Amino acid sequence: MEKTDVLVVGGSAAGIVAATTGKTFHPDKDFMLIRKEVQVVVPCGIPYIFGSLESSDEDVIPDAVLSNGGIRTKIGEVVSMDTQSKVCVTDDGTEIRYQKLVLALGSTPYVPEWLPGTELENVYTIPKNKEYLDGLLAKLAEFRNLVVVGGGFIGVEMSDELHKIGKSVTLVEILPHVLELAFDQEFAMEAEKILESRGVKVRTGDGIKNIQGTTKVEGVILNSGERLEADAVILAMGYRPNTSVAEQSGIELNRMGFIKVNEYMRTDREDILAVGDCAEKKSFITRTTKNIMLASTACAEARVAALNLYRLSAVKTFGGTIAIYSTVIGDTAFGVAGVTESLAKERGFNIATAAFEGVDRHPGKLPGTHKQKVKLIVTRDAGVMIGGQVMGGASTGELTNLIGLAIENRMGVDSILTGQIGTHPLLTAPPTAYPLIKAAEAIAKSRWIS
Amino acid sequence: MEKTDVLVVGGSAAGIVAATTGKTFHPDKDFMLIRKEVQVVVPCGIPYIFGSLESSDEDVIPDAVLSNGGIRTKIGEVVSMDTQSKVCVTDDGTEIRYQKLVLALGSTPYVPEWLPGTELENVYTIPKNKEYLDGLLAKLAEFRNLVVVGGGFIGVEMSDELHKIGKSVTLVEILPHVLELAFDQEFAMEAEKILESRGVKVRTGDGIKNIQGTTKVEGVILNSGERLEADAVILAMGYRPNTSVAEQSGIELNRMGFIKVNEYMRTDREDILAVGDCAEKKSFITRTTKNIMLASTACAEARVAALNLYRLSAVKTFGGTIAIYSTVIGDTAFGVAGVTESLAKERGFNIATAAFEGVDRHPGKLPGTHKQKVKLIVTRDAGVMIGGQVMGGASTGELTNLIGLAIENRMGVDSILTGQIGTHPLLTAPPTAYPLIKAAEAIAKSRWIS
Repeated sequence: MEKTDVLVVGGSAAGIVAATTGKTFHPDKDFMLIRKEVQVVVPCGIPYIFGSLESSDEDVIPDAVLSNGGIRTKIGEVVSMDTQSKVCVTDDGTEIRYQKLVLALGSTPYVPEWLPGTELENVYTIPKNKEYLDGLLAKLAEFRNLVVVGGGFIGVEMSDELHKIGKSVTLVEILPHVLELAFDQEFAMEAEKILESRGVKVRTGDGIKNIQGTTKVEGVILNSGERLEADAVILAMGYRPNTSVAEQSGIELNRMGFIKVNEYMRTDREDILAVGDCAEKKSFITRTTKNIMLASTACAEARVAALNLYRLSAVKTFGGTIAIYSTVIGDTAFGVAGVTESLAKERGFNIATAAFEGVDRHPGKLPGTHKQKVKLIVTRDAGVMIGGQVMGGASTGELTNLIGLAIENRMGVDSILTGQIGTHPLLTAPPTAYPLIKAAEAIAKSRWIS
Repeated sequence: MEKTDVLVVGGSAAGIVAATTGKTFHPDKDFMLIRKEVQVVVPCGIPYIFGSLESSDEDVIPDAVLSNGGIRTKIGEVVSMDTQSKVCVTDDGTEIRYQKLVLALGSTPYVPEWLPGTELENVYTIPKNKEYLDGLLAKLAEFRNLVVVGGGFIGVEMSDELHKIGKSVTLVEILPHVLELAFDQEFAMEAEKILESRGVKVRTGDGIKNIQGTTKVEGVILNSGERLEADAVILAMGYRPNTSVAEQSGIELNRMGFIKVNEYMRTDREDILAVGDCAEKKSFITRTTKNIMLASTACAEARVAALNLYRLSAVKTFGGTIAIYSTVIGDTAFGVAGVTESLAKERGFNIATAAFEGVDRHPGKLPGTHKQKVKLIVTRDAGVMIGGQVMGGASTGELTNLIGLAIENRMGVDSILTGQIGTHPLLTAPPTAYPLIKAAEAIAKSRWIS
């Protein structure tokens, strides 16, 4: 029987942060992290293994993060848990007794049961599994025509990276536009246009019906009847939480299969917390249960869990996911925080929105200037920020984070309107036409005087 | 006698924003902007005229900003004001009657009276004056050795740009390091090191004693006695507010010569507001009177003035300058918001600080990755954010703005510690080691458990 004070199960972003931040705030406790993987890939970096990095070895989270933080690490899979006696059992039969257990079990790519042909050779998914990804990488030379199914972030980034290395890539998305679950249509259409201009073939408004082939993939039939030549198919149709071991031990899951947690990230057992892709997600704004999975949300949850392991700390609860994320297609970045205009309307918010398009350097003649567009979504009554979208250059990610900070702190759009920002010719939009502020100004005008 | 509802005097950033935002919120009022300059340069872009842009024509604010906003424009200088009868008189004798007057009079480079030799040919300053700057540009070919006096932002950026076009540049700064009024020493020293590695010669801890020459500049003598060869000298020793016309009309100035204003940007005359470089500045944090001049602060003041022209709106006052700014040397950007550690201590704050250094992309092997360092300054008692500094790549400006937003909204560092941020391999630091959050974590640790 091994023993530890805090046992963290899972070695990806959420597990690492839960362990290292937990140890920071509980230096007297012993922390052990157990994971299946010998090497852990940086999850969001996976698409870039294919086109931008030399190999998957460049996309590995160094174990020094854990050892420098004073965390013991163990390779193995937890196959059962006794939550009464507080013991986990691993695949080699080792028993580990804990005081506190943090489940960071992660997620697995979704492969639809209704889709014929998924058993064929050269049908791939994108799991957080270095060996599997290396297997795909090694086979890529054999493939000419690739079909990527699913136009979310992973599908879009994979398509662009695979096209970069000379593959003929077709991206299939059943919705009218790629990225449409994340962005309002005008942003999604812009993303789609750029993706197509770079050479990725895009089929939207059309789903996959079956994958054809005898032993290997030969083609794909779409719902419309169109047939696509394919040497390989990559399914980027979402992920499902890895919660079976939790379910078997009696821990409560929600109807979508995620572990139920409260704002302290505690499960229905006081000594067991869950964070990351396996933990229940609620929308910060709409308060509905979501199946969003983001490393950044996972890390915020993990920090909250780390701070609330032994004592509760009411100022530091997790109030729901704001779903802040960004992506890049070519040299254009897209970022979003909170709800889109279409989701806000669908959920019943009375909103005011505005967008402003300018440039991300000033004067705009400076080399490297990129156009920058910011859209804000605000409640019409109280003027509270509930969403924002950004299209621009290299500063898009942090500008989106600024909007996210405003949303998370329930700021009024007026605090943006007269907010102080710093500007620099080479780093930001001009102070006279800073798109974030000009969008806030347009909203204030529409709320106050029209 | 001409007439207008709102007369804005001054055509740089503050004047433009006061007029356009004012018109946005008062569409029924007539707005007129009067300025001396035929063409207005983008103020922060001035240094980049010399090395990065083709000519000053690329650094001009288009008049369409005003005409599209419904603002009438007049070229001329206001030489006197009768604040009783509400009339301004211009240099050609035109009288303009107003309901509301917004003074955005700007500033002029400081030329020390005690410095011998400033009357010599080829002694320059950096005013916001296109003709003057074009004059300097035209003469540059004649110069080989340039001495820039003053290691603030303008001096540093001018030095780097002039060095870029092949000049031998020596930057003279009387403080121990360049940028030391803005940054803590460890950031300032890094900036200085990069500047030197790029080929700019830096003399710190040494001031200028006199400028030598018979008719033209021939050299410069420093306080230490060292003599520098010089074909031209550029004085970047700060700016003074252009407030003589306001003073003559009886409007109250503060002891530093700035027009006194309240939080609505009103002067001691209810119908006269002042914004930008000519208006009094207080520090948002230390509450002391400052002589800081920034286009971004000016624009925030102008927006507040615009909203409060006719009616007061208490949620939108200007609470003092946070002095958010950023600069770039080579490919490294430096940003700062609020107070530095050294200023906070000097003013008597009991503070906690921490810094974290990571990378601005993830994995760090991605092309274009830049190291990123974030330092936070927080009050030890209440944990309120009062300052931050960033060193990094292209996202530095907006990350600094995010810190500024937190400061302006008096956020606690805990809201950063467990805050949700979005991350993307090509745009941000990793979620597991996001420097802003790791610095907040280190501060929380020092406040809570040590």
